[in-house]
Amino acid sequence: MTIIPNLNIVPFVSVDHMMKLVLRVGIDTFLRELADVVEEDFRRWESFDKTPRIASHSQEGVIELMPTSDGTLYGFKYVNGHPKNMKEGRQTVTAFGVLSDVGNGYPLLLTEMTILTALRTAATSAVAAKHLARKNARSMAIIGNGAQSEFQARAFKAILGIDTVRLFDIDRTASEKCARNLAGQGFTIEICDSAQSAVEGADIITTVTADKQYATILTDNMVGPGIHINAVGGDCPGKTELHRDILLRSDIFVEYPPQTRIEGEIQQLPEDYPVTELWQVISGEKHGRVNDRQITLFDSVGFATEDFSALRYVRSKLAATGLYTELDLLADPDEPRDLFGMLLRCEATLA
Amino acid sequence: MTIIPNLNIVPFVSVDHMMKLVLRVGIDTFLRELADVVEEDFRRWESFDKTPRIASHSQEGVIELMPTSDGTLYGFKYVNGHPKNMKEGRQTVTAFGVLSDVGNGYPLLLTEMTILTALRTAATSAVAAKHLARKNARSMAIIGNGAQSEFQARAFKAILGIDTVRLFDIDRTASEKCARNLAGQGFTIEICDSAQSAVEGADIITTVTADKQYATILTDNMVGPGIHINAVGGDCPGKTELHRDILLRSDIFVEYPPQTRIEGEIQQLPEDYPVTELWQVISGEKHGRVNDRQITLFDSVGFATEDFSALRYVRSKLAATGLYTELDLLADPDEPRDLFGMLLRCEATLA
Repeated sequence: MTIIPNLNIVPFVSVDHMMKLVLRVGIDTFLRELADVVEEDFRRWESFDKTPRIASHSQEGVIELMPTSDGTLYGFKYVNGHPKNMKEGRQTVTAFGVLSDVGNGYPLLLTEMTILTALRTAATSAVAAKHLARKNARSMAIIGNGAQSEFQARAFKAILGIDTVRLFDIDRTASEKCARNLAGQGFTIEICDSAQSAVEGADIITTVTADKQYATILTDNMVGPGIHINAVGGDCPGKTELHRDILLRSDIFVEYPPQTRIEGEIQQLPEDYPVTELWQVISGEKHGRVNDRQITLFDSVGFATEDFSALRYVRSKLAATGLYTELDLLADPDEPRDLFGMLLRCEATLA
Repeated sequence: MTIIPNLNIVPFVSVDHMMKLVLRVGIDTFLRELADVVEEDFRRWESFDKTPRIASHSQEGVIELMPTSDGTLYGFKYVNGHPKNMKEGRQTVTAFGVLSDVGNGYPLLLTEMTILTALRTAATSAVAAKHLARKNARSMAIIGNGAQSEFQARAFKAILGIDTVRLFDIDRTASEKCARNLAGQGFTIEICDSAQSAVEGADIITTVTADKQYATILTDNMVGPGIHINAVGGDCPGKTELHRDILLRSDIFVEYPPQTRIEGEIQQLPEDYPVTELWQVISGEKHGRVNDRQITLFDSVGFATEDFSALRYVRSKLAATGLYTELDLLADPDEPRDLFGMLLRCEATLA
C-alpha cells in the first residue's frame, strides 16, 4: 500500500479567487481560451456520457445537477434558477461545480461557478455564432440586460469582433447598468426604448431575459433575413422567449436535443421537429449557415459538457496562478479501511 | 431591494470538523440522534421527491449523485465507489454533500460525507433492525470488516443493545483492526475463521463486503430461523452478497424499490418479486417481523433521503458547536444583476 500525502485535500476556487483568476488571465483571453476548450469538447461530443440535467422544480424555481464524463474526467454542476431572487437581493442563478478523476472517483477541483457559468454561457454563445452568424456581423441587439448581458457582449467582441451593442430591457436601469459596465471597452452602445427598436440593423439578436413564463420577447415581424438569433433566456419548461412563427422560419441549432426539447424554445414545436446539433456543425458533419438570407437560431439551454469544459479549463490554470485554497474535504485515514480508527485517533488528540 | 450581508458564504464542515462534531456530541448520541432523524424522515416518506441515484459507471467504479427534496430543503450527495482504491491507499467510498433552501436555491451547508455516510448507513441499518430483528437480539455477525464495520457495531449497540460481535473477513488483519477499534467499548468480540463460523449463534448477520462482483458471502445453509440479515455491501448492479435461495426464504424489506431492484440483492429476482418498503413498516402501514422464526432481510443500498436526514441533522448542530468554516462559494454582487460590475470593481481594487 502506497501512502500518498494530502489525499484529503481538494483545491477550492472561491468567488474571490475566480474573479482574480479571470482578471489575471484577462477577460478577453479567458473568454477566448474557454471558447476554444468548449469548441474542442463539442468536437469530441461522442466521447461524452450525456444525460439531461436532473431538475428539482418548485414553485419558486429549480435546482439542477448537470453531470457528464468523458471517461477520464467526470464533472458536474449544481445550479439553481430562481427569478424572484433578484427582488430579495440574491442572484437568479448561482452555481458551483466539481471535477473528478473517473479512475478513483476523487474530486480534483471544487469551484464557484456563478461567475464561471456566466463566462461559459457567453463563450458557448459566441462559439455557436462563429459557426452560424454572417461572417461580417458587427452589431448585436441584447434583449434583457441582467447579469448575463455584459458577458455576452464581451464574448462576442472577443471572439467575433462585434463592436456595436443595442440594449433593451423592460427595466431601463438594467440597460444603463449594462452600458456603464461596457463603457470604455471599444463598444458603440445604444440604449433602446423597445425590443423592436433594439433589433433594427442588428446582425445578431441575443435574448437573455429571466422571467419563468412563456414570454414573447421577439415577434415574427422583428426578425429580418440573415439574422442570427442567440436565444439564451428560454431554458426551462414553461420558459420561452420567441414567438413560435420565428422558429418555423429559422434553421434551429441545439446542444443536446433530449434536453432542449424539454427546456428550449423548441418545446413549442412537435417532438420530431428537425433540428441540427451544434457539435455536428462544429465537427463539419453538417452545415451551419449556408447563405446570407437564412435565419439561424441557436436555441441555447446550457449543457453539462460546457460546464465540464469550463471546469477543466479552470483546473488547467490553477498550478500557474495559485489562485485556490486547499479544502479538507475527503476523509483520508492512513489505512483506508480504518475510517473508524481515524475518529478514535482524533479523540485521542483531543483528550 | 434588501441587502443581506454575507450571502456569498456557505458553512463548510471539513473532515476535521466532522470528526470533532461527532466526538463533541458523542459517537453513541450522534448515532442515536441521527437514527431518530432518519426514522422521522422515513415516516414522512411520501413528502419526498424521489429519484434513483444518477450513476456514472466506469470499469473501475462508479460516481453517483443522490438528490432529494422535501419541498422545503433540497439535499444531494456526491459519492464514489471504487473497490480498487484501497490498494492505492484511497477510500473505496468518499462523499460530500450539500443542503439547500428550495425557496431560493442557495446552499445552506457543504459538508464532507465520507464519515457522515458511514454513520448514516450504520444508523439506517440499526433503524431497520429495530423494526425487523427479534426483540431479544444481542449478538451480530459482521461479514466484511472494512471501513463500515465498526460503525455498524456501534450503531447496533447504541440503538438495539447488541453486545456481542462475531467478525469475519477474508483478510484477517481487517478483522483484527475492527476488533482493536471496538475494544474497551463493552463488546464481546470474536474473530472467526469463516463466515460459517461467524454466523453461528448470531441473531443478526450484517454483510458489508466491498468486491464489485456477484459474490456469495452467505449460502442458504448458513441462515437459520429467526435471523435478521442486514445486507449492506450489495449495492450496485453486478454486486451482490447473498445466495438467491436465501432471498426466497426471507421476507425482504427495501428502501426505494426502483433503486433496489437495480442495485440490491433483489437484482437476482424477477422484477415483480414482492418486497416491503421500510417506510411502510416504520409508519405502521405494513408488518415488519411477525414471529420469531421468520427470516427478515434488509436489502440496503442507501437512499438519498438518508443522506438528506444526515445533512439536516448536521446542520442542526452547527450553531451550537461552531464546528464549521465559512466558504466564499456564491457570487454576491450588491446589485444582483451586476455580476459583471463585481468583476470590474474587483479589478479596480487590484489596480
